[in-house]
Amino acid sequence: MKLPKRVTICEVGTRDGFQIEPDFIPTEAKIEVVNKLAATGMPRIEVTSFVSPKAVPQLKDAETVMAGITRRPGTRYSALVPNDKGAVRAVDAGVDDIHTVVSASESHNLANVNMSVAESLVKLTATAEVAHRAGKPVYSGISCSFGCPFEGDVPVAQLESVVARLVDMGATGIGLADTTGMANPAQVTRVLEHLMPRFAGVEWTLHTHDTRAMAIPNILAAMEMGVTHFDGSIGGLGGCPFAPGASGNVCTEDLVHCLSAMGVETGIDLDALIGVSKRVQEIVGRVLPGQIVKAGAWSRRYPLPDGVKERLAAR
Amino acid sequence: MKLPKRVTICEVGTRDGFQIEPDFIPTEAKIEVVNKLAATGMPRIEVTSFVSPKAVPQLKDAETVMAGITRRPGTRYSALVPNDKGAVRAVDAGVDDIHTVVSASESHNLANVNMSVAESLVKLTATAEVAHRAGKPVYSGISCSFGCPFEGDVPVAQLESVVARLVDMGATGIGLADTTGMANPAQVTRVLEHLMPRFAGVEWTLHTHDTRAMAIPNILAAMEMGVTHFDGSIGGLGGCPFAPGASGNVCTEDLVHCLSAMGVETGIDLDALIGVSKRVQEIVGRVLPGQIVKAGAWSRRYPLPDGVKERLAAR
Repeated sequence: MKLPKRVTICEVGTRDGFQIEPDFIPTEAKIEVVNKLAATGMPRIEVTSFVSPKAVPQLKDAETVMAGITRRPGTRYSALVPNDKGAVRAVDAGVDDIHTVVSASESHNLANVNMSVAESLVKLTATAEVAHRAGKPVYSGISCSFGCPFEGDVPVAQLESVVARLVDMGATGIGLADTTGMANPAQVTRVLEHLMPRFAGVEWTLHTHDTRAMAIPNILAAMEMGVTHFDGSIGGLGGCPFAPGASGNVCTEDLVHCLSAMGVETGIDLDALIGVSKRVQEIVGRVLPGQIVKAGAWSRRYPLPDGVKERLAAR
Repeated sequence: MKLPKRVTICEVGTRDGFQIEPDFIPTEAKIEVVNKLAATGMPRIEVTSFVSPKAVPQLKDAETVMAGITRRPGTRYSALVPNDKGAVRAVDAGVDDIHTVVSASESHNLANVNMSVAESLVKLTATAEVAHRAGKPVYSGISCSFGCPFEGDVPVAQLESVVARLVDMGATGIGLADTTGMANPAQVTRVLEHLMPRFAGVEWTLHTHDTRAMAIPNILAAMEMGVTHFDGSIGGLGGCPFAPGASGNVCTEDLVHCLSAMGVETGIDLDALIGVSKRVQEIVGRVLPGQIVKAGAWSRRYPLPDGVKERLAAR
């Protein structure tokens, strides 16, 4: 396998995960989780979203959370914003990076943000201007990059045209999001083979969902293509409104464990990360999909069963 | 990605999965599941195990199950046997193939079958003789091929020496089993790079567990090395006594879905397989780890939300 030596993880659980939690998570708990994530060595955290509190009541405390966290040198703190108004709020709150989103498919964009893709791109131009005036890099995510739950296939030319517009706006990074877990590794390879040579200098991120058990396979396929930035969600928080009971975002600690087992550096302390995942499960009050919290790392050893110990000793 | 055009799946759920179910599964239900699996086009099924009913009470009905199933042309029916006595029973019961198991690690073999590896290999020589006299191919699985929960690392030279002994006994296939989910894709690649050139003509199978969320990644790594035979367990039945709550064997329908999405043929009808998985969940009385049963295939479409439909129509 042709793997990079090091990858950069962006933790999105407190935004992409918390936003669909039915019960309001106390602001102090959100701050605690962000601080604990940073303490693991997490290089990037998408803390929250500066969106209308009517649209996402769970994240109505975005300013308070940003003001309450302890900034760790070495961690970049970002927020998702839907428009220039959100970008102003995010800049005022002191984010390091601005994250935006638009869908590659028309119907998903209408369903998600109630705008056509063209309308979204106009809004994102204004958003990028706010960010750049404030000296903040923009990372632009594209939902449904690998397929749309309403329309099905998203032609790569259609995806490419959205990428081109975002790159024109000065995006530092482009996040290809497999929003509802439709991508497969061969497809990820094909899409990246098409896009990467066409947009030199772009920092590509893959945002995966494990809805159909292919999140880590898709990440590995992207790594073999040279992608080194990936989103993850602590515990596998998050989900898909279209697939009740299915897994959500790729579980950060499962991904970090896999990378660590293969000798790929992330700068993240896995044991500390497992501790955060346990705490998040307490906060949301349920067991999350992550496996490593249940199984422990591959290096975990078990005591020999009694009879075995004696027989080995007798040899 | 360099993928084979076609792979062969062996379903092991009725053996590796059912054997650890706490409540006895009625013989008729076992027969029903085997027949339904065969009807999906499943090319190989490890039906049961001819082992002492004291050791594995759940599979005490091995003869009755084998006698009760309807043999579908195109499916090969096998059973796991621990020794020559089990092989005689399996041959008498009419299996097509004999499956055996030994561990690559001394302590796991003692814990699993109460014999040293050397003692097991003597038993397996007698087992292979029974099988070959009856004209039955032998497929030899090696537990803990990628690590032992008691000892940790299993040196590849140690694994190689076990493979060599099994090949000398005339094994048609060697199954490398990641019994407790310790393997990672880079390691699978390395181990196969070492073994495959040394044993020409061997049919390699990878038997994976998703304990640490790396089952499908490990399978894809093996496919890129040219391996085309994989075990799977319907619904993800099975588990690991050392990791309560963790996933078991790789889920057959999740694997078949991933392969089908990438255009790799298995000859298996995915919809029918999902139906079997639902039936198995009824039989065992709980939700299993498989994702596709919950999420549906990647090609699943959802109706447009109401407002979206009108806005799209107005464009």
